[in-house]
Amino acid sequence: MDIQRINPAPKWSDATVFNGIGHFVEVAEAPENASLESQVAQIFEQAEASLATFNSDKTRLLSVTIYLTDFAYLETFNQLWQDWLPEGSAPSRACVKAELADPDYLLEITFVAAAK
Amino acid sequence: MDIQRINPAPKWSDATVFNGIGHFVEVAEAPENASLESQVAQIFEQAEASLATFNSDKTRLLSVTIYLTDFAYLETFNQLWQDWLPEGSAPSRACVKAELADPDYLLEITFVAAAK
Amino acid sequence: MDIQRINPAPKWSDATVFNGIGHFVEVAEAPENASLESQVAQIFEQAEASLATFNSDKTRLLSVTIYLTDFAYLETFNQLWQDWLPEGSAPSRACVKAELADPDYLLEITFVAAAK
Repeated sequence: MDIQRINPAPKWSDATVFNGIGHFVEVAEAPENASLESQVAQIFEQAEASLATFNSDKTRLLSVTIYLTDFAYLETFNQLWQDWLPEGSAPSRACVKAELADPDYLLEITFVAAAK
Repeated sequence: MDIQRINPAPKWSDATVFNGIGHFVEVAEAPENASLESQVAQIFEQAEASLATFNSDKTRLLSVTIYLTDFAYLETFNQLWQDWLPEGSAPSRACVKAELADPDYLLEITFVAAAK
Repeated sequence: MDIQRINPAPKWSDATVFNGIGHFVEVAEAPENASLESQVAQIFEQAEASLATFNSDKTRLLSVTIYLTDFAYLETFNQLWQDWLPEGSAPSRACVKAELADPDYLLEITFVAAAK
């Protein structure tokens, strides 16, 4: 069975798909001076685009790990997260605090999703 | 192929199952004033319940990531972990230090397991 | 469907394989006094050995999470990572800072890969 890679670059692919399951990771593409709300909106929009590349959508998330750089962001993040997710389609979710590779990043999310 | 979601809530599902693979995450349900031993026992009991929802059990773990808030817990955790796992059925395992969303949480574990 | 476990020990297996997908985690086997370059080289060599146990190789990585103990290592790591990966075969990738279980460890990497 073939592996599908979306935009394979030297360090990472935007997504990989194998056996009906996609893996992708999002940080805000324009993090500089971007508020938490802006970074979350960017990540959700990017995630929807990544999901679309393998004929999936946000109703088909299986698992996410959310890395927050500060738990002061948790309450706001949770509200945006719930507003984004269609009812009844929440994935399994881990949430931990971690420093990220670019100090402008306020959060990073890894996703596992089912293709259609 | 359909995605099975166990107890889908607005922020997360207790487990998701797709293509024979389940994802779930556990923190102690009653962490307040709970010792490491108590939290680990809670997590293991919760994990067994989560596994049972998709006809799996602790012999069928594929991968775990263990987030400990303090490596002083590692030795005790490792002993409890070995005692819990049936011989010959240990998953792939990562273990890192991380702060968690509730200061009462001493650890969080993400699981990937095979359905039967 | 059976789960294949590579070298199951009491705390972890070197790899698990199910439904065509392998999970494994690497830290340097000889971390003491080992430079970043040495630890990365060890991890890559170990990863290739783990991949070979389920008839896979480094062209078939789906997803990795890289835990670095210090982002001062990121630039060097990225160069070694790009040099190791065959063109067009990069996985989905998360990279966060985390303390690891042994203070000698400079990094830990979790891998998800496709079997052949």
